[in-house]
Amino acid sequence: MSFKRMMEKSMRERNSSIVLALDSVPSERGGLLSASLRMLRSVHPYICAVKINNHLLLPLGLHGGVERIIEEAHSLGLPIIMDCKINDIGYTNRVIAENFFNAGFDAVTANPFVGWEDGLKPVFEAARKMNRGVILLVYMSHKASREGYGQTVYDVETNERKPQYIIFAEKALAWKADGAVVGGTYPEKIREVHEVLKENVPIYSPGIGAQGGSLRAAISSGAKYVIIGRAITLAEKPELAAERLREESWKRMID
Amino acid sequence: MSFKRMMEKSMRERNSSIVLALDSVPSERGGLLSASLRMLRSVHPYICAVKINNHLLLPLGLHGGVERIIEEAHSLGLPIIMDCKINDIGYTNRVIAENFFNAGFDAVTANPFVGWEDGLKPVFEAARKMNRGVILLVYMSHKASREGYGQTVYDVETNERKPQYIIFAEKALAWKADGAVVGGTYPEKIREVHEVLKENVPIYSPGIGAQGGSLRAAISSGAKYVIIGRAITLAEKPELAAERLREESWKRMID
Repeated sequence: MSFKRMMEKSMRERNSSIVLALDSVPSERGGLLSASLRMLRSVHPYICAVKINNHLLLPLGLHGGVERIIEEAHSLGLPIIMDCKINDIGYTNRVIAENFFNAGFDAVTANPFVGWEDGLKPVFEAARKMNRGVILLVYMSHKASREGYGQTVYDVETNERKPQYIIFAEKALAWKADGAVVGGTYPEKIREVHEVLKENVPIYSPGIGAQGGSLRAAISSGAKYVIIGRAITLAEKPELAAERLREESWKRMID
Repeated sequence: MSFKRMMEKSMRERNSSIVLALDSVPSERGGLLSASLRMLRSVHPYICAVKINNHLLLPLGLHGGVERIIEEAHSLGLPIIMDCKINDIGYTNRVIAENFFNAGFDAVTANPFVGWEDGLKPVFEAARKMNRGVILLVYMSHKASREGYGQTVYDVETNERKPQYIIFAEKALAWKADGAVVGGTYPEKIREVHEVLKENVPIYSPGIGAQGGSLRAAISSGAKYVIIGRAITLAEKPELAAERLREESWKRMID
């Protein structure tokens, strides 16, 4: 099963479109790994996937550390995404992707800014070969996003002007990406990107909650999955927060 | 001492402008960590700094793995750079930079595409606080570099058109970066970027050797440091290759 279909299946079976960002887990007692594993176990009924990033990778390491979280996610039936935002040269990108896929990740994120040839092509090749997913960054959730993702690009051959994020959305279509990240803090960008992608490439929307994005606005603008971290992991009762957010998002999805 | 001055000092004392990219070290016997440490020890007289990236970080991990290489570099008197190409949101970028600085890295690389506010600002703040360096990607060495780094950006306020890499070079100046990466495979870009940066921000040039870049062209176009990996690490006799490249580059530098 492709990563895209695996996500679809998980979402339908669990009635949840929430991807848990397991980034910031309070770990005063018992260490970061066990706190992260506990968090995952306690909120797993309310989410459809997990993503982790350097918040866990750097302190825990891949082997023996993050691999334990991958195993736990899989044993709970959840796909797991490495949000590594690949943006190196092809030779290194391939090694990065292979390391994460070999460790068990079902998908990686990558920055389309590096381009195709000797850039992201080796990442897509590794993903296709191992039947994993590649999710492209199209418009990020932070304040300065407009500096890069929001800039206007001028095509010297056609004299055409185009927003950077539309070019990235078109690359997501052309390269057959398994997902596109558009910040939940910019619902109008979600709408524009969704017009390009339609149902071909699902939109993943981070920035909901702690960063100020509205779940309702993100979903009604076209996001298929919402990536939620601190609004769950730093809540007094993470299970209750996750349950409430699941209900809220699911009501929106089937509206 | 600032990272920029530390590099300057190392270069003068060692009569070498070579930054060793410790990425691909053959490790059939004895494992990757010990092979990397051996490589570093054998070529250290001919280089002025070391950089490592995900080729080592992912298999070895930061703690107990890559930290050993940092210690070895420092005990040999060499600055060490983490080529992590930071390109996440500020909240995560800060954690990435702090993890690498706390582990002992003297500098990190980052992608200016993510912008300042809530983007790279926290990375520069962490670097200033801990007296470490930030090196920005301005034009990379791979084939598709022109797709992103080489695109033309249109300023909707001034109606001005500018190459992306010139915008990045201007950010390197404005943000007081400690270095700018420009691929040695594109000497004409080194020249253009050097015209913007002059002696304020030194140019680091990767892609020499295995990727096809010429050391001579990179240096005469304005690169201050040349990043060399496979041309040394995969050579039959790495010390001899490093010595030869050092001589070639140093002759160029003092021409």
